[in-house]
Amino acid sequence: MSATQTNKIEIIKAATSKIKDVDFDNLHFGEVFTDHLFECDFTNGEWQKPVIKPYAPFLLDPSAKVFHYGQAIFEGMKAYKDDNDAIWLFRPDENYHRFNNSATRMAMPEVPEEIFMEGLKQLLQLDEAWIQKGKGNTMYIRPFMIATGTGVIANPSDDYKFMILLSPAKAYYSGEVKVLIAEHFSRAANGGIGAAKAAGNYAAQFYPTNLANKAGFQQVIWTDDATHTKLEEAGTMNVFFRINDTLYTAPTSERILDGVTRKSLIDLAKRENINVEVRPVLVSELVEGAKNGSLKEIFGAGTAAVVNPIIGFSYQDVYYELPKSESSIALELKDKLTNIQHKLAEDTFGWTVKV
Amino acid sequence: MSATQTNKIEIIKAATSKIKDVDFDNLHFGEVFTDHLFECDFTNGEWQKPVIKPYAPFLLDPSAKVFHYGQAIFEGMKAYKDDNDAIWLFRPDENYHRFNNSATRMAMPEVPEEIFMEGLKQLLQLDEAWIQKGKGNTMYIRPFMIATGTGVIANPSDDYKFMILLSPAKAYYSGEVKVLIAEHFSRAANGGIGAAKAAGNYAAQFYPTNLANKAGFQQVIWTDDATHTKLEEAGTMNVFFRINDTLYTAPTSERILDGVTRKSLIDLAKRENINVEVRPVLVSELVEGAKNGSLKEIFGAGTAAVVNPIIGFSYQDVYYELPKSESSIALELKDKLTNIQHKLAEDTFGWTVKV
Ligand SMILES: Cc1ncc(COP(=O)(O)O)c(C=O)c1O
Ligand SMILES: Cc1ncc(COP(=O)(O)O)c(C=O)c1O
Repeated sequence: MSATQTNKIEIIKAATSKIKDVDFDNLHFGEVFTDHLFECDFTNGEWQKPVIKPYAPFLLDPSAKVFHYGQAIFEGMKAYKDDNDAIWLFRPDENYHRFNNSATRMAMPEVPEEIFMEGLKQLLQLDEAWIQKGKGNTMYIRPFMIATGTGVIANPSDDYKFMILLSPAKAYYSGEVKVLIAEHFSRAANGGIGAAKAAGNYAAQFYPTNLANKAGFQQVIWTDDATHTKLEEAGTMNVFFRINDTLYTAPTSERILDGVTRKSLIDLAKRENINVEVRPVLVSELVEGAKNGSLKEIFGAGTAAVVNPIIGFSYQDVYYELPKSESSIALELKDKLTNIQHKLAEDTFGWTVKV
Repeated sequence: MSATQTNKIEIIKAATSKIKDVDFDNLHFGEVFTDHLFECDFTNGEWQKPVIKPYAPFLLDPSAKVFHYGQAIFEGMKAYKDDNDAIWLFRPDENYHRFNNSATRMAMPEVPEEIFMEGLKQLLQLDEAWIQKGKGNTMYIRPFMIATGTGVIANPSDDYKFMILLSPAKAYYSGEVKVLIAEHFSRAANGGIGAAKAAGNYAAQFYPTNLANKAGFQQVIWTDDATHTKLEEAGTMNVFFRINDTLYTAPTSERILDGVTRKSLIDLAKRENINVEVRPVLVSELVEGAKNGSLKEIFGAGTAAVVNPIIGFSYQDVYYELPKSESSIALELKDKLTNIQHKLAEDTFGWTVKV
């Protein structure tokens, strides 16, 4: 721990731990939180003294800007415990920088690296009993920032709250995933906030996703809002398409989140001599590939599920099911990536960082 | 008051009133709130007992979905006190219906009319001393709904809180307004949530608006995100353009909020035999009109400012100043509309509703 002022995190310990009440074998993603959270307020133009304290509800004014104008951003990352009880983070610098990019786009203050990283590390250390060992067990980490300043006039807040929550998670298995290709609704505008992890981007997807669910599809793959011809990403995942033996994925843009899993899979695939092409992928190519059999796999890539194989897609009311095959690049890459994350394979990229 | 169950609003009065501390001549928009607020929670699939209680901060869980996924909507409306101390609302049914349209788009439950309207009326009655008489004095009303359910997984909340806040307001005068025509940033996507009063739409505009402010422009006029050739609306106002003696305004769409002021001004202009055309207005027409002198006025229309004259605009780094003229359709319509709202002119449309 360095000696600067902001590093002096005040720690208020919970009187008792809730850990005994937790059934770690039956966790629902994102529902259980550890005993403590990290908090740092921004007011009078600067970040105040950070604190780690018991997880608990907090007071907000009814006119807080987060409620009225949606100034809110977040990150999603994971920590892993290896067989020697060491705790590891996966490319935390990527999440840190993306968080501050999101902050800038939403006219919020950047969080200093020391507050973000020291807060995260000390919180993980304090609640380390909650991090379970073994592949598939992870600690999901949710840094977020909200506008706490008051007033029902649409301008940026003067006050903000940055927090980190920890939620133990099992391997995220969501069953067989069929997706709907978006033909009318969209996730992001050109010149909009699609590339930011801004809260409002997610609620915007709930209604069209509900419609897709009702039609029997678990997720929507969004397309560009102007022409609906280019495949972009899913709700909380970037997407990859395997045509013959090449993986395709859209370039990130103003409309598409620059996913850490996506970029890691690209590097991993290259290392494994799998051909990867980053270029716009057209809906028509997908349909064509499904018809002529060259489309072998589709999968989502994101922190929560790591890799999420997709078994079929619907477009213009036609459902296309992918061929079942023994060899899956998706599962091969998932295995390699989770092995690195859990320190079960050599990390040739230097992605893992010890807490 | 009707006799149904939901109508029985519990009323908890504030021990003392803050009204003596308020300088009604120097109000900043949206900063001062009355003694009470209205609140109704949605849980277990239904709306619970509504309550009017002292304005105060409230507790929320750090994992509340409003913080992480931006499920939050609002409305903006006004109440007026006439010379006989009667309180009037302006087209409240329009706000009520738009609120529920926003709710549907954001996968939130609709608020029953009785809860919305009775809550609003009883709150206004309880805090009626806060509503000042005289043209220019209004009570700004902020109904809003947030997702209070917990969990850091991106899906709709099970629990919601609906609230109404009251904020006394003076005539909204924002000085001379120069606007920037958006060439890169955008407010809304095709198939997105631009037509909803969703919180996230507003934070998305703060950063580009900050950039405009720094360049000397108070507001941005948004253009369509795909081509940036069509004029859409401003941050919290629809926009009208007067070319010669005709008013033009864009049709509302998925990308543009269906403003109550806009539609009222259209009706009012028609009654006054002013020519109004609702059709897409191109940036090129605006530039052309500014160059050949046919562009006479630009103004914003919204509840807060009613009508906001714009004195000039910048596009592609060229600033076009509008001619100064004695006759302003903007100010003429503003006067007629505010007279109706304040019960100083006959309401031939049946827009005003007594509380
Ligand atoms: C919209 C969106 N796309 C993609 C991703 C995947 O990003 P990452 O791999 O960094 O988790 C996320 C993430 O969580 C997301 O919210
Ligand atoms: C985006 C946007 N456009 C236009 C308006 C104007 O709508 P209204 O006249 O109903 O206030 C608002 C309103 O408040 C708004 O938020």
